[in-house]
Amino acid sequence: MSTPVPQTVQACLAALADLLGPAGVISEAEAQAPYLMEARGNAVSTPLALLRPGTVEEVAAVVRLTAAAGIALVPQGGNTGLVGGALAAAGTVLLNLGRLNRIREVDALDHTMTVEAGVILATVQQAANDVDLMFPLSLGAEGSCTIGGNLSTNAGGILTLRYGNARAQVLGLEVVLPDGQIWNGLRRLRKDNTGYDLKHLFLGAEGTLGIITAATLSLVPRPRQMETALVAVPDVTAALRLLKRLRQASGDAVSAFEIMPRFAIDGAARYLGEHNDPLSEPSPWYILTELTAGTPGDALRETVEGALAEALEAGEATDATLAASGDQRQKLWRLREGLPEIGRKVGGALHHDVAVPVSRVPQFIERANRAVADLCPGARPYPFGHLGDGNIHYNIARPDSDDPADRAAFLALGPRIMRAVHDVVLDLDGSISAEHGIGSKKRDELARARSPLEITLMAELKRVLDPRDLMNPGKILP
Amino acid sequence: MSTPVPQTVQACLAALADLLGPAGVISEAEAQAPYLMEARGNAVSTPLALLRPGTVEEVAAVVRLTAAAGIALVPQGGNTGLVGGALAAAGTVLLNLGRLNRIREVDALDHTMTVEAGVILATVQQAANDVDLMFPLSLGAEGSCTIGGNLSTNAGGILTLRYGNARAQVLGLEVVLPDGQIWNGLRRLRKDNTGYDLKHLFLGAEGTLGIITAATLSLVPRPRQMETALVAVPDVTAALRLLKRLRQASGDAVSAFEIMPRFAIDGAARYLGEHNDPLSEPSPWYILTELTAGTPGDALRETVEGALAEALEAGEATDATLAASGDQRQKLWRLREGLPEIGRKVGGALHHDVAVPVSRVPQFIERANRAVADLCPGARPYPFGHLGDGNIHYNIARPDSDDPADRAAFLALGPRIMRAVHDVVLDLDGSISAEHGIGSKKRDELARARSPLEITLMAELKRVLDPRDLMNPGKILP
Repeated sequence: MSTPVPQTVQACLAALADLLGPAGVISEAEAQAPYLMEARGNAVSTPLALLRPGTVEEVAAVVRLTAAAGIALVPQGGNTGLVGGALAAAGTVLLNLGRLNRIREVDALDHTMTVEAGVILATVQQAANDVDLMFPLSLGAEGSCTIGGNLSTNAGGILTLRYGNARAQVLGLEVVLPDGQIWNGLRRLRKDNTGYDLKHLFLGAEGTLGIITAATLSLVPRPRQMETALVAVPDVTAALRLLKRLRQASGDAVSAFEIMPRFAIDGAARYLGEHNDPLSEPSPWYILTELTAGTPGDALRETVEGALAEALEAGEATDATLAASGDQRQKLWRLREGLPEIGRKVGGALHHDVAVPVSRVPQFIERANRAVADLCPGARPYPFGHLGDGNIHYNIARPDSDDPADRAAFLALGPRIMRAVHDVVLDLDGSISAEHGIGSKKRDELARARSPLEITLMAELKRVLDPRDLMNPGKILP
Repeated sequence: MSTPVPQTVQACLAALADLLGPAGVISEAEAQAPYLMEARGNAVSTPLALLRPGTVEEVAAVVRLTAAAGIALVPQGGNTGLVGGALAAAGTVLLNLGRLNRIREVDALDHTMTVEAGVILATVQQAANDVDLMFPLSLGAEGSCTIGGNLSTNAGGILTLRYGNARAQVLGLEVVLPDGQIWNGLRRLRKDNTGYDLKHLFLGAEGTLGIITAATLSLVPRPRQMETALVAVPDVTAALRLLKRLRQASGDAVSAFEIMPRFAIDGAARYLGEHNDPLSEPSPWYILTELTAGTPGDALRETVEGALAEALEAGEATDATLAASGDQRQKLWRLREGLPEIGRKVGGALHHDVAVPVSRVPQFIERANRAVADLCPGARPYPFGHLGDGNIHYNIARPDSDDPADRAAFLALGPRIMRAVHDVVLDLDGSISAEHGIGSKKRDELARARSPLEITLMAELKRVLDPRDLMNPGKILP
């Protein structure tokens, strides 16, 4: 922030400091650090200023001041994104929304809640729980990500199979537009067909069309019963058959259906020192599944036990265990949650957040593994994630070697490997970003993922809403 | 169609006839009639031509030819809309999509189906049923409305409470854009965050931004058990308490929750000659509710019986009957389905398709009734509909008099009554069009329902996608 800046920019920064006061302008390097460093530590923001406004009116005033000076804004929630969507380049202002953290209203009879953008996702979940309801969005970063970021990136996570993405949980939005006007679209209607549905423009737009400052969310009844099972399956096709069986047997009560390779168990032992193998024989693949019911009683457990027995009989599964307590449940989930940690410990892993039609996941994994092996024979793919949505985190650990040259050679192959994995995804009509978004990291790949016509339509929407490209420039669009 | 037309238009019509052949151009007055008359018989289209293309390529060619001649197009599905959305004014071409009626693909493992715009909704439902799945959209016109119309108007209906509106059932779209390009967005992914979600622009846009020609739909497991109950309730507030009780007791298994006034039973006897009163004592209000479960067995029935017994005890209900057979179920639904028919028989009813937050429905009905009584003391409001969504069809029968002067006086008050009803809706943060759309009929009211900023944003979207206003002009936007 010591770069010399032109006078109008200086004047603008002074006006912003006046507007927001000390709580709204973070200047100390140490205090700035957590907002500037990208979640995986691979990149650092270098903004003109780091602002933390406290109200929607302050956000609107910031937008008007910076727009007048021609300065671009980068909105930021909990800074947990993985594609550089909240990275602020030199010459831009980083606008963190964490101080907009009020729950404005909870209405249990309407099953709705109106919250500001900076409320932590776990806080939203808890507030729903407090009135005996549930906000059905859950993901790894829920303890630090914010609802504004979740909505701006249309976050996914483990409950999408049952409840849909973040977008599906929204009834209304409040958005500060690129010209500083506040759009109050905080409706809480279940049906409203009065013209175009404007909220869908801003949901998933990663802050490139305006800044989401608040949202009215839809809540659902809280489940009364939950069953968690770890199931050993011989292959991915068998896992899909198991999913169909569980959905049918339970009346679509499957809320999570995660796939993990054996690497989740071996890797936890080797890299995390955690010896946690709930089943007696090793299996190439595991399914961690959760089913919930709205009514109490033993019916769900009996259903799950019956379906798993049939799956074992049919060869869709080779072994299974049902959590008998909250502790056991947490131990099973620990296997799934450890996978990102293992990636960090191994070092130099390559990440791909992709989706294909659910029925094509087996083909995708087989073809991607082959493509990776062709490029780098020692590389260790460990695909895992939300099989029920067709969303696989196709991650690859470096070859198992202590030679730094091997590690460097693997990382140098990164771009070619990514390209090869995405080639398979696109050939199977899939998505190169299932739930993480495009940000700056995948921007160059967008032209391969979407048709020229789609890119033109997106660029036209961007131009009409943000003609001066002042909202999160350099993100999404090429 | 005998209006003299300029030469270029003549040339365009000749080229269209060449392109589509006899099956694609309807010229006989008798054959045209069902496409020209609006569903309630209140208005008639007077287009230059009535076209029925058979493929998406033909649709695109029609759009290119008419755009070159500067002729506007009015797309039409099953012509069941109630707000004049498919009415074609003089000088426009009416484009009926009923010949695009192929089911392109059903994938039971992916729970998806790709269908063309002209497939009848009931046919979509049946095709899902054939693979033991369900397409969860159901409404009165399902035997003749088309899926393209359903998606273009974001149709609602009786299952919205459980499954969401038409918009929520869509994974991908194929759209012919105003310049004749075909956008192939027929993805079948559950997660895809690669830039802006373009499909939401066209869903609910009533054909003003492009013509939906096909869609990939999301299917759900078919319920295995269904319980249908008619419940007498003392007032609307009691009905909302009953809804909450049933949702909680059943684990959110309520798929329909319709409210009807006593008029449904008395009106059926008087105007339809149907004597169908399943309960022994008259009640001011009735709830027709349906619950479904994904698993077979008696559990659901026991749950519903238990919850209804508690509701009777708590004074939320005064009587109830559970259908014991398919015949009995149909007889209960007949009460609800008869209401629009009664309206037609009475003659000169006023219709309002409105929504308010669910918790405010009692207040809405009370205030609207008072406003109507002030304007026209003899008028007979009979509010009914989707209470679970806050969506009330606030319809009003003319005063009970055989004097034609009374009837004329009532109809003359129509615009003032509508304004008064909408005033109450807007004061309660509601919607003046919950599920029917804006079309041409409610266009003048839009400026009251949406803020100037929202109307500006909508107009900008229209301008960028359809700069020459050739797609369904005169609909939605003022």
